[in-house]
Amino acid sequence: MKNLLNNVEEVLLMGPGPSCVAGPVYDALGVYTLGHLDPYFIKIMDEIKVLLRKLMKTNNRLTIPVSGTGSAGMEACFVNLIEPGDEVLILINGVFGTRMKDVATRLGAEVDTLEFEWGKPVEPAKVEEKLKGKTYKIVAVVHAETSTGVRNPVKNIGKLLEGKDSLFLVDTVTSLGGINVDMDGWGVDAMYSGTQKCLSCPPGLSPVSFSERALEVIMNRKTKVPNWYLDMSMIVNYWEGNKRAYHHTAPINMLYALYQALLLIIEEGMDSVFNRHLENHTKLVKGLENMGLEMLVEPRYRLPMLNSVKIPAGTDDGDVRSRLRNEHKIEIGAGLGPLAGKIWRIGLMGHTAREENVERFLKALKEVLKR
Amino acid sequence: MKNLLNNVEEVLLMGPGPSCVAGPVYDALGVYTLGHLDPYFIKIMDEIKVLLRKLMKTNNRLTIPVSGTGSAGMEACFVNLIEPGDEVLILINGVFGTRMKDVATRLGAEVDTLEFEWGKPVEPAKVEEKLKGKTYKIVAVVHAETSTGVRNPVKNIGKLLEGKDSLFLVDTVTSLGGINVDMDGWGVDAMYSGTQKCLSCPPGLSPVSFSERALEVIMNRKTKVPNWYLDMSMIVNYWEGNKRAYHHTAPINMLYALYQALLLIIEEGMDSVFNRHLENHTKLVKGLENMGLEMLVEPRYRLPMLNSVKIPAGTDDGDVRSRLRNEHKIEIGAGLGPLAGKIWRIGLMGHTAREENVERFLKALKEVLKR
Repeated sequence: MKNLLNNVEEVLLMGPGPSCVAGPVYDALGVYTLGHLDPYFIKIMDEIKVLLRKLMKTNNRLTIPVSGTGSAGMEACFVNLIEPGDEVLILINGVFGTRMKDVATRLGAEVDTLEFEWGKPVEPAKVEEKLKGKTYKIVAVVHAETSTGVRNPVKNIGKLLEGKDSLFLVDTVTSLGGINVDMDGWGVDAMYSGTQKCLSCPPGLSPVSFSERALEVIMNRKTKVPNWYLDMSMIVNYWEGNKRAYHHTAPINMLYALYQALLLIIEEGMDSVFNRHLENHTKLVKGLENMGLEMLVEPRYRLPMLNSVKIPAGTDDGDVRSRLRNEHKIEIGAGLGPLAGKIWRIGLMGHTAREENVERFLKALKEVLKR
Repeated sequence: MKNLLNNVEEVLLMGPGPSCVAGPVYDALGVYTLGHLDPYFIKIMDEIKVLLRKLMKTNNRLTIPVSGTGSAGMEACFVNLIEPGDEVLILINGVFGTRMKDVATRLGAEVDTLEFEWGKPVEPAKVEEKLKGKTYKIVAVVHAETSTGVRNPVKNIGKLLEGKDSLFLVDTVTSLGGINVDMDGWGVDAMYSGTQKCLSCPPGLSPVSFSERALEVIMNRKTKVPNWYLDMSMIVNYWEGNKRAYHHTAPINMLYALYQALLLIIEEGMDSVFNRHLENHTKLVKGLENMGLEMLVEPRYRLPMLNSVKIPAGTDDGDVRSRLRNEHKIEIGAGLGPLAGKIWRIGLMGHTAREENVERFLKALKEVLKR
């Protein structure tokens, strides 16, 4: 029987994720599977929590990877904190803020939104105004909006919530491991990320963290979490304590890979990793601008790991992307929603954020565009 | 920094899952990550659907792996089919039937149960009686109860539902790939499984399948699925059609592994695989009985892949299991719930179900028990 895996090419992943995976992470995936209650595996779980806390800059006890991709992390944060009728404010300036609204609405929350133009950041002054009217149970925002390449001012939004009763929920799917994320410093109560962006691990897990305040809300719910699979009040007993209780069978080999990916970041040094992202971003933008291309986002709000560049007039979006993929083995991302056909999204995430990749991409794009 | 992965031992996984993973499946995990919308990756996705349909014996269009472990599959089946107030009947004779009840109740269903002794099968006659009173929207049962080692008579229960308006929902987490599963032949409308049992792939994915009838129910819901991550009406657009729509980033490398694991089963031949499970089960039971041990389940209801044996009086459960693990590098499972401390659960799942493993285990158990 024909085995399609024999012909998988090595593609330079410069889209919005997954990103390129380093050799040791691929190797980790192939380490012998252990049982999910094996004492040695529990050691690895414990170490994953330690590494995640470092990267997220948090002391939260409940800091673990959820057994699903980044969107499962979003689901986990909302479903554990929301009870029907809860007031939630969602700050939206792209696909992932919009998704938050959909997730929270399905769970029976009373969702208010504050919307900003896609490609522009959330404005704290407008948030401050909005907060005057009402105390929300949850205020939610995306740190790095993967659909536009905008960095939202999470720290400043966090300041607005200081001393308030609201829980601060932040999506760091694309930011974690690529730019500074300071969960405790910014007063974030619930945070989720994904493995396939700046952690440079294949997709499949979503690191989440809940503050003690958030955990208290979870433990004192009036209703059970309407999602058995993601119920943190049970999952915590598998990830913590002297006697671990089976909840669901953890994705062992993916957890090996996450462990290895986190180790690589900590070994390289978090600040070095952030600098590497920034330097390559600067190089990429310079190269793109030298080719006459224009970035979507103002410099001060740009994410280093997700670069949105406007598609030049008269250029066939799909044709360029498929030629990059077929002739140059490079993947970049298309625009989403109102930005479909208008931008390309060029990822420099984790292991992808290297000089040789920037150069190879710029050369390839030049070739493709000149024909 | 110390890397814990360097000291992971190869353990013979004879518990209730995960099972041993074959070399080619480990290799598949390390194949270059592709983008989740990459045309070549979509070919692999399409082939996974074909292979899953073969193994499940179904023509259902919507036959895909959910991006989570087996319990996410359970969640997916219930959350897509249940709307608040729906009448559901759950047949319970172990942990996983009990879990179904919890999942369905959290989703607002009116849950009726019919309970049977743990270690005994569900009795179709009693189900028939129960069905006389009411038409349930869903009737749910576990095919292979992993907590006891009992095979439930899914085919006969399916017959009782013929011509009725109820949807038949079946858990085949532990059975799929180890014994015959005939989704269409048995009239099953929604089915889920897991990768880490008889498919011998690491945990992380849950193959699910929905009949056209079930799909119609999903597409005509009055309320949105209260779980964005598992909403099949959206996920189907990623797994089907000419233009695939991004929903969440699929767990690429885990899907490679599932593809490879399915390929190995189809290449060996489904009937040969089932026979291999049966033969090794027979050998194991004979060996255990020769040692004076007693099986929990009556022969005609026994699962070949999950063998529950009673712990002899005066034997220290935990000590035996930890010595098997530490001295012999063999994992077996403990009892759950009312069977905790009373049985061991010995898995012969997928790649684990081999003569040399049965012999190695019997020899080790003999040694451990005689001291």
